[in-house]
Amino acid sequence: MGEYVPSQDLLPRIDRGETVAIGRLITRAEGDVPEARDALANVYKRSGKAHVIGITGVPGSGKSTLVAAMTAKLVASGKRVGVIAVDPSSPYSGGSILGDRIRMTELANNPNVYIRSMATHGEMGGVARSTLATADILDVAGFDVIIIETVGVGQDEVEIVKASHTTVVVSAPGLGDDIQAIKAGVLEIADMHLVSKCDRPDANKTLTDLKQMLTLNAAKIAQSAWRTPVIGVSSLTGMGLDEFIAALEGHRKISVSSEGDKRRLEIAAFRLEKTAKRMLLEEFDKATGSARAELAHRLSRKEGDPYSFALDLVRSVTQ
Amino acid sequence: MGEYVPSQDLLPRIDRGETVAIGRLITRAEGDVPEARDALANVYKRSGKAHVIGITGVPGSGKSTLVAAMTAKLVASGKRVGVIAVDPSSPYSGGSILGDRIRMTELANNPNVYIRSMATHGEMGGVARSTLATADILDVAGFDVIIIETVGVGQDEVEIVKASHTTVVVSAPGLGDDIQAIKAGVLEIADMHLVSKCDRPDANKTLTDLKQMLTLNAAKIAQSAWRTPVIGVSSLTGMGLDEFIAALEGHRKISVSSEGDKRRLEIAAFRLEKTAKRMLLEEFDKATGSARAELAHRLSRKEGDPYSFALDLVRSVTQ
Repeated sequence: MGEYVPSQDLLPRIDRGETVAIGRLITRAEGDVPEARDALANVYKRSGKAHVIGITGVPGSGKSTLVAAMTAKLVASGKRVGVIAVDPSSPYSGGSILGDRIRMTELANNPNVYIRSMATHGEMGGVARSTLATADILDVAGFDVIIIETVGVGQDEVEIVKASHTTVVVSAPGLGDDIQAIKAGVLEIADMHLVSKCDRPDANKTLTDLKQMLTLNAAKIAQSAWRTPVIGVSSLTGMGLDEFIAALEGHRKISVSSEGDKRRLEIAAFRLEKTAKRMLLEEFDKATGSARAELAHRLSRKEGDPYSFALDLVRSVTQ
Repeated sequence: MGEYVPSQDLLPRIDRGETVAIGRLITRAEGDVPEARDALANVYKRSGKAHVIGITGVPGSGKSTLVAAMTAKLVASGKRVGVIAVDPSSPYSGGSILGDRIRMTELANNPNVYIRSMATHGEMGGVARSTLATADILDVAGFDVIIIETVGVGQDEVEIVKASHTTVVVSAPGLGDDIQAIKAGVLEIADMHLVSKCDRPDANKTLTDLKQMLTLNAAKIAQSAWRTPVIGVSSLTGMGLDEFIAALEGHRKISVSSEGDKRRLEIAAFRLEKTAKRMLLEEFDKATGSARAELAHRLSRKEGDPYSFALDLVRSVTQ
């Protein structure tokens, strides 16, 4: 493992794109190591060059395969690409989904690609915080495009993707009712829609359905200068990938314009809220640990109710 | 709408199982109406007779169809059944998944069935709080079995199901890699595993895979008096449903034993934590609103960093 290198000393190495230094600071951001906060603050202030793209889709939508395919395309065009995969790992076993990552293995050895999985054990607010800090680090390390990939089901996961310059929602043909309905929930956050697996004959229906949904939502969308495209892609045949990359470039231009100011403010507000609430809850956990255990015992014996006990705990911290 | 009936006055009507009164108090619990807290505290202290069953599964696992089938079975055997469906609705459009509920429509008119969807907009901690409060209300209203159904992807949703006497994880044959891996994340919380759609020929593989996974985890499971069963069911043919109901009864006996004390303490601790943290965050939102907007503006202009700004906000509330 070697000696602990102070986080400030990692900064010049991160600026040079040194993988080991990048990985160390990300780990400290994930663990919320107090010693790293000044370095992360420094990184935050210097970040802002990269195009941060959030990609979300339900399990089975093919988003991971798509991320691999687009990464390969971007790298081939001379871009350096960072991928942050937010994995719905178990809070109990600590296991992450590794299957999707395997598709990325060949890319992982390319010096112009950096891949990092963020496990989602712990409160989701913590994942938002560490994911965005990781994007900052990759930004100052010189990555041109940073892809944040999440499973688009939990609300926090959707929010993480929303906190990027361009939000891409991936759908697949032939998924059940359940899944299509969840997709409807992320309809409005999409800057662009992708329908994956468009080599399949049933993809046309999904494309049509999505376009129809967007037409119904046209009133909301008309407020923006950007017209949300629906793009059919196939990671298998490569179909639609160029159109997708071009759409990303197009949206990038919007995101650095005055319309992008609003988005940047929303992202800053989101980030401030998540960081502060995470700190607050950590402080609460530290301050109330033993009192809480005692009250939980009394609660399980019905010697009180959750509302007044909870209020007692909150008062003990805020007054 | 009529006049506002004080929550305390709803209590005797809830005890008689009056649907309108039940619905009103649930709505107040969801909205965290301060006037309702004393009534909810009263309900909490008197609850504890019902068997609370948590059912989770990824989208497409067939859990909603299963809930409809088991509800019909339980009602036919003379039980009164409450169903709380936690829907992954959009934080943006406020829409909930209605498709699955349609399958329940015929049951919904049965006086021995009460069905309630809880939308998951807002912080998830709020859903845990209102779901458990709803279970209390249905409990004192005389429902014998209360089913809490969630999509088992987000961590909070998994936790809600864990906060029940018996946790059932539903898997389906033929789902992709992605989905199977998520399922692995909830392996350890299951008191029983169901494989749905067992009329399909590929169901055997899923049954075998699950049994194998459980064998690998045998060390952990050995600590318990309960042996986690894997049950194949088909809502289409009715296969396995009787075995499932019998297993629920069997687990119910464990949950009221001394082994159940540990579970009750865990549930009480979970509930206290969620309620307190929810209160704390609400207080934080109220106290910091305007300061936060100002800091977000400065943050978006990079005139500071999220860590020190967040710390300022936290300090303003806790000191």
